[in-house]
Amino acid sequence: MKKPLMQRGKFISFEGSEGCGKSTQIKRFVSMLESRGHEVIQTREPGGTAVGEKIRHLLQFDSEAGDLTDESELLLFAASRAQLVRRVIEPALAAGTWVVADRFLDSTAVYQGVGRGLDPAAVKAINGFAVGSTMPDLTLLLDLDVKIGHARAVASSDGQKDRIEDQPLDFFEVVRDGYLALAAEAPDRIAVIDASASIEEVTVLIEASFAERLGEGAA
Amino acid sequence: MKKPLMQRGKFISFEGSEGCGKSTQIKRFVSMLESRGHEVIQTREPGGTAVGEKIRHLLQFDSEAGDLTDESELLLFAASRAQLVRRVIEPALAAGTWVVADRFLDSTAVYQGVGRGLDPAAVKAINGFAVGSTMPDLTLLLDLDVKIGHARAVASSDGQKDRIEDQPLDFFEVVRDGYLALAAEAPDRIAVIDASASIEEVTVLIEASFAERLGEGAA
Repeated sequence: MKKPLMQRGKFISFEGSEGCGKSTQIKRFVSMLESRGHEVIQTREPGGTAVGEKIRHLLQFDSEAGDLTDESELLLFAASRAQLVRRVIEPALAAGTWVVADRFLDSTAVYQGVGRGLDPAAVKAINGFAVGSTMPDLTLLLDLDVKIGHARAVASSDGQKDRIEDQPLDFFEVVRDGYLALAAEAPDRIAVIDASASIEEVTVLIEASFAERLGEGAA
Repeated sequence: MKKPLMQRGKFISFEGSEGCGKSTQIKRFVSMLESRGHEVIQTREPGGTAVGEKIRHLLQFDSEAGDLTDESELLLFAASRAQLVRRVIEPALAAGTWVVADRFLDSTAVYQGVGRGLDPAAVKAINGFAVGSTMPDLTLLLDLDVKIGHARAVASSDGQKDRIEDQPLDFFEVVRDGYLALAAEAPDRIAVIDASASIEEVTVLIEASFAERLGEGAA
């Protein structure tokens, strides 16, 4: 008897601005996949590898980070991602494991690229170099009116209220527009999900999009 | 009386493979500039900023570095350089200080790009993003027959003989050819210096090239 070829896992990324309900929906999505018998790993960025965690530390907790240039920040995100893709994501997919990413290269394009006004062509080249051929099979973009997203982010931010309230609403607009522009450029990969409804309803929309895009119906 | 405008400093990088005599010539070159009354700073990479020194540590001394992918390594070099350019080199030049760099973006193009077989177009895009408009006014490429360079590197390597002897001569050839190809692409910026002669003779060649290219004669 011939051993069946290992079926490659699927790679799904979640994107969206603050307050879009991404964390909640990722938990539900991973549970759904596991209930169907898939092995699943979750990734976050920056981080996920030994080098990546050090980069995460450098970006987030280092007292020097306030001095970090936009260019260096983007390159550090890309370095962490290059490592994650080759040491974690690609081997997992090859072994048949599914990968669910809380943000991937679209976040860099939107937050560092559009948000900071860096040259989009350069950001695209760097993103492409970092991930190589490992692109998500599906990206679920949780899209939301910026006023709702802002209010939700503030409501759930507890101790960090000031930091988020201080971010001008304009920035949320720029992020949303940036994401929608990416979705328009890559409609086969990026599904725009209306994230303004209830948690339960958004989950239904996500699962419907998943079934339609990756051909997996209800179990 | 009108205050004269501050004259921008000049930016000069040195490049070349192991054993080319770069360190010795940089010392002599900096002394010559200082004896002419210029303020001079030297830079090395990776490093030179708080974040850059952490990246240097990550690249060189970290026990995890053996696991670093070629892509992540290149992006970390670029992140360190992006920071160095904007926080050290550009402010120095603007203040009239001269900057002498022991390796700059050409090293990345040759060692990471050509040496590791990474996509040259992507490496060029990343290099360009990292340095912005801050390019050397002059790059002195110390060029040497690979057999001479290899022998010199081995002779001067002391405790690290094994590591350098283990590097195949082929790699030195690839590096030399990579540098010469860059010089052919950018003849106005990169001066090829025959580094096979004595230290004194190479210094004469460097100073002649400097005088010719940047219009500074002997003091």
